[in-house]
Amino acid sequence: MYDLVSLGKAARQASMKLRTSDTNTRNTALCAIAASLRENMPEILEANRLDLATAKAAGIRSVMIDRLTLTAERIRGIADAAEEVSRLADPIGVIDRGTTRPNGLQILKTRVPIGVVAMIFEARPNVTVDAAVLCLKSGNACILRGGKEAFATNRALARLMREAVEKSGLPADSIGLVEDTSHETAERLMKLNGYIDVLIPRGSARLIRSVVENATVPVIETGAGNCHMYVDRAANLGMAVEIVDNGKTQRPSVCNALETVLVHRDVATEFLPMMKARLDLHNVELRGCERTCQILRSIRRACEEDWATEYNDFILAVKIVDSLDEAIAHIAAYSTGHSDGIVTNDLAASRRFTAEVDSAAVYVNASTRFTDGGEFGLGAEIGISTQKLHARGPMGLSDLTSIKYIVTGDGQIRS
Amino acid sequence: MYDLVSLGKAARQASMKLRTSDTNTRNTALCAIAASLRENMPEILEANRLDLATAKAAGIRSVMIDRLTLTAERIRGIADAAEEVSRLADPIGVIDRGTTRPNGLQILKTRVPIGVVAMIFEARPNVTVDAAVLCLKSGNACILRGGKEAFATNRALARLMREAVEKSGLPADSIGLVEDTSHETAERLMKLNGYIDVLIPRGSARLIRSVVENATVPVIETGAGNCHMYVDRAANLGMAVEIVDNGKTQRPSVCNALETVLVHRDVATEFLPMMKARLDLHNVELRGCERTCQILRSIRRACEEDWATEYNDFILAVKIVDSLDEAIAHIAAYSTGHSDGIVTNDLAASRRFTAEVDSAAVYVNASTRFTDGGEFGLGAEIGISTQKLHARGPMGLSDLTSIKYIVTGDGQIRS
Repeated sequence: MYDLVSLGKAARQASMKLRTSDTNTRNTALCAIAASLRENMPEILEANRLDLATAKAAGIRSVMIDRLTLTAERIRGIADAAEEVSRLADPIGVIDRGTTRPNGLQILKTRVPIGVVAMIFEARPNVTVDAAVLCLKSGNACILRGGKEAFATNRALARLMREAVEKSGLPADSIGLVEDTSHETAERLMKLNGYIDVLIPRGSARLIRSVVENATVPVIETGAGNCHMYVDRAANLGMAVEIVDNGKTQRPSVCNALETVLVHRDVATEFLPMMKARLDLHNVELRGCERTCQILRSIRRACEEDWATEYNDFILAVKIVDSLDEAIAHIAAYSTGHSDGIVTNDLAASRRFTAEVDSAAVYVNASTRFTDGGEFGLGAEIGISTQKLHARGPMGLSDLTSIKYIVTGDGQIRS
Repeated sequence: MYDLVSLGKAARQASMKLRTSDTNTRNTALCAIAASLRENMPEILEANRLDLATAKAAGIRSVMIDRLTLTAERIRGIADAAEEVSRLADPIGVIDRGTTRPNGLQILKTRVPIGVVAMIFEARPNVTVDAAVLCLKSGNACILRGGKEAFATNRALARLMREAVEKSGLPADSIGLVEDTSHETAERLMKLNGYIDVLIPRGSARLIRSVVENATVPVIETGAGNCHMYVDRAANLGMAVEIVDNGKTQRPSVCNALETVLVHRDVATEFLPMMKARLDLHNVELRGCERTCQILRSIRRACEEDWATEYNDFILAVKIVDSLDEAIAHIAAYSTGHSDGIVTNDLAASRRFTAEVDSAAVYVNASTRFTDGGEFGLGAEIGISTQKLHARGPMGLSDLTSIKYIVTGDGQIRS
């Protein structure tokens, strides 16, 4: 049985050193990681070739192969990103709030690292570096469990990063890699209470469901995005076409891509042909409700399952609704609470929509594709939370922190 | 099998109404609850007498009977507290941060209710009202599962609160009571994903462990408090005696009470007899390490288990340490991360202690008994979190909120 407890203990020890490390040392380590990735490119590419050969021999589909592939350019991009993170403000030591109580006690609410952050993810080896870099920046040790397809690549990356961190004066165990990609070990990782302070899964809906069901350590649920755009009767229809096109076709494989368009009946006859003409340029397959199919006669009928599906592909579900209320009710029933929007010029409608739709990000007259740490100005992103505890929406460095109350007095006792 | 799913659905529906309810309506409901508790005191006391008779017949110990007992005065206190909460600022609708991005998108990070908050707790019926009141104030529906000892009382309280809420124009199902106190139903409640956004257990260590191990819904762990006070060699020893006495004897049954005192060897000979003389006034039983027993010859030897025990009683473990480092290491090994403190006049020692001790509240020259929502100025408290996600330390109204990003543009798309 793979020795997860030793890995957990080592990470816990490292986290205690990291907690009191200074900003400069952590930033130096990030730059050392970037430099090492650039210098040791041949080694990384060699490991990646090994993974790619295994994946191709196993007949893995091309989208996955693309995610798995590293090139010199991609490695330089990963290294650049690590350096960028080193230039962001330190989220640790920030004093959120402070007060002096009537009895003279000074209470400071300060930001501290969470401790040990575990991540379970799939094929993308860039996540290995991104996650380690963001955890290190925020003073957290990390335990990474990547997909088996990227195993050789991840091992090479982890070894280089651990060396770079150690040379910078921080514990090598600040970055831990689970060197066993079995499901059984992943499930034990989910129950490693006492060593892991938070587990963040990134990947398929199936992976995330498995973590939510099995984990006994605290979890931040990420990712699932069944996103909607409601084209109101007061919409600028030209704007709506641009927003729907962007949401669906700019990058269909990601969680903030659009999956269902809801159209008010008063504008459906005019809007739907405009939308279809634009989406036809990208060969988007439309699946419509009964009334939609009466207007767009060539398209396929949507079934119940379509409303609940995150296609992540060039497919879009389309439904005509009678009212704003029906749009809001449809979103309440089917949205995963990631990103949903309205196109309207009616202020009252936009206020009702943003108040009543209960999603991490609610849009008025903009593409759902903006739900992203970089686009939100967070500087970096460790994932997009679709739960309501701790963090919701794009998670930046400050979401990798916890708080500590520091209370200073001169002998106060409670009466 | 008790129908938890219907209860969950009703709470979810109610939470959707609450989410868009206005501050005044929610405050009116809180005052209506207070008024109803005062008006219907005979009914509540009658139900409570029933619970007390059952508990006494079952031979339940007197501490528990005291917790279970309601009196006219206690009910007035509970009603007053509900009115006080109505006067606190609304935590919902607060805009934490806002930005206008270079592309013109306006992004507002706004506070919204979490949704449905479930609580599992034990004998105190006041928690039933406190929890419902804090959830209602923050726009959350709640599902309450109290202990079987308080069942009749809780049912009376829930019925009165539901009526008051309904008369105020909010759904009665804003407050749901699990009317089955079996363990089996409690365990199903812990897995009611899709209906519960967060589960907060309050009560014994055993209850909390059971929730952490069994729950698949997000949990906020509360309560366990093995708290330490380190008397540094640079301590004002008179102040240290006051702080230790207050921490141990002012209310020993609570989670922020002191359980272990660590004393620097340089001041042990002087301090320990002073401390013992004071604690003897309260008949506190001391359990000391070998060196402590050489100074205080009459006391019992502490064993390994004592360092890890939350006595919640008039018992105190005492250990002599050679250095600040040893004190910090002992706390790292045995503290539950609730509240730990140092008595010192050495600034460098206080800075190291507050940086290195990883607890929710870290004290310098003050009693650990201050870890409390009221004492921290939060106005009210739903519990004290001992985990690092979402909330840590005393949880006030703002900890019962989540966030929603509201993004407004004029046709922005991502390039």
